[in-house]
Amino acid sequence: MKLFSGTFGVRTEAHIELVNVTPDVSRLVVKSGVREGIALVYSPHTTTALIINENESRLLSDLKGAIKDLVPWNKAYEHNLIDDNAPSHVVGAFLGGSVGLPIARGKIELGTWQSIFLVELDGPRSREIEVKIVGE
Amino acid sequence: MKLFSGTFGVRTEAHIELVNVTPDVSRLVVKSGVREGIALVYSPHTTTALIINENESRLLSDLKGAIKDLVPWNKAYEHNLIDDNAPSHVVGAFLGGSVGLPIARGKIELGTWQSIFLVELDGPRSREIEVKIVGE
Amino acid sequence: MKLFSGTFGVRTEAHIELVNVTPDVSRLVVKSGVREGIALVYSPHTTTALIINENESRLLSDLKGAIKDLVPWNKAYEHNLIDDNAPSHVVGAFLGGSVGLPIARGKIELGTWQSIFLVELDGPRSREIEVKIVGE
Repeated sequence: MKLFSGTFGVRTEAHIELVNVTPDVSRLVVKSGVREGIALVYSPHTTTALIINENESRLLSDLKGAIKDLVPWNKAYEHNLIDDNAPSHVVGAFLGGSVGLPIARGKIELGTWQSIFLVELDGPRSREIEVKIVGE
Repeated sequence: MKLFSGTFGVRTEAHIELVNVTPDVSRLVVKSGVREGIALVYSPHTTTALIINENESRLLSDLKGAIKDLVPWNKAYEHNLIDDNAPSHVVGAFLGGSVGLPIARGKIELGTWQSIFLVELDGPRSREIEVKIVGE
Repeated sequence: MKLFSGTFGVRTEAHIELVNVTPDVSRLVVKSGVREGIALVYSPHTTTALIINENESRLLSDLKGAIKDLVPWNKAYEHNLIDDNAPSHVVGAFLGGSVGLPIARGKIELGTWQSIFLVELDGPRSREIEVKIVGE
């Protein structure tokens, strides 16, 4: 049984953005040498999320719209007195900042239509994502 | 330390449906022979989710209602020009397509009132769910 | 490769409440002796959730408000005929009852602004949270 740790950086370019990080995670899975196991992709940030869905441009636009509709963005949040990004935190907490992934035959066992997205909720920023892999 | 991989199929019968998959996951945990560990139940589909809650018929009806209320289903989503199921994707991304579970004494350590549900969001369809178990 | 299991109790004091459980999880990680690995923090309850975000009092108030706004709390839910807590179940299912965490150098590898919160959705109650750690 092996344990592997890796990280990768993402430079986001908009306030709200979905960045396909599948190639970054895949690269680390290959580097780990793990053939069968579990990967944890983890964002150490409080205004991002990680989701898995289809990499289709119109759907990504719909997802961005739905994220904006999930909470009101112009409300008088209390946290905004300190840092003007309360709804970014709220959506990050609701969507969740990590995904667990199965690994099989040395690859992430994603479904045909699945990609992994970092959801930027308070960009543009530089983000650093952690990957832990356990397996053999 | 052992590693186990298994899958099970689910035939869903409605557009939106909650299917109790606890027996399917339990069977694989027993088959794995793992006594203590962690299981990852993972859906490789982009219009499903996995959730854990109480298997009480009226609550399942409430959950189905709340899922329908989480996003508008009749909006002019852009993705609908390609495939008429954008809100199914959005809800799948929001709810999340995997659950992590503790295993103790050879069983999933679910709480008294907990069951595992596959949430079908674009059925009826045939779904294949993956289970990875690490432990001893 | 080691496997560690632990639990900790939380006494909640309000109907809806966010309790910072980072010290409880950290203590178990230290106790496990695991230096590098993955932790699963799991709530066996159906009216709680686990989230990760910033431990800032005004933000916690905003998060509590957003949780109350995620679903209507005074609707005629069917489950309320049995037990008057349907929206607590719904929000628990939506937010999710577990978090996966990376462990590095003997500590949870949380980001600078991250803390782990048990979200009580039907308190006050006594809750028991499970932690599974795999690593070396």
